[in-house]
Amino acid sequence: MYVIMVYDVNVKRVVKVLKIGRKYLEHVQNSVLEGELSPAQYKKLKHEVSKAIDPEEDAVRFYLLRSTRYLSTEELGLPSRPEQETSFL
Amino acid sequence: MYVIMVYDVNVKRVVKVLKIGRKYLEHVQNSVLEGELSPAQYKKLKHEVSKAIDPEEDAVRFYLLRSTRYLSTEELGLPSRPEQETSFL
Repeated sequence: MYVIMVYDVNVKRVVKVLKIGRKYLEHVQNSVLEGELSPAQYKKLKHEVSKAIDPEEDAVRFYLLRSTRYLSTEELGLPSRPEQETSFL
Repeated sequence: MYVIMVYDVNVKRVVKVLKIGRKYLEHVQNSVLEGELSPAQYKKLKHEVSKAIDPEEDAVRFYLLRSTRYLSTEELGLPSRPEQETSFL
């Protein structure tokens, strides 16, 4: 399945959450990652993220798509982040 | 079509971009809005957002879904923002 993950977490936990996300997904915008995962991988990702965030302060949203046939993506502003661009960390 | 909008903009322009987004979509997470739009409404939204952001500093991503049949959403942490919760502005 195709997974889009959007995180809004306290700056204290951004590096940690992003690091987890990048083990599974491609980092496409500052707070957005996406990619194809098996259900088992998604379960692991969600579990790791749930342990890393503070549920009283942070929010993470996962969009799960069984098919990308009906999905298109458009961007404004900065292009998708190349994986090497980590200077903001 | 169903539109998911995720913005990563400089704090100076957050209020402006969010205000535009909310004219068209529901605010579901700090940097995420979503909702059903006509192609004409989406065009207007994208146009307004493009004028409000600095393309050298900001990024906005739109996911467009012709059908939500294959979409599901899961959340961790804070629940979807009720529209009245604007204290962070």
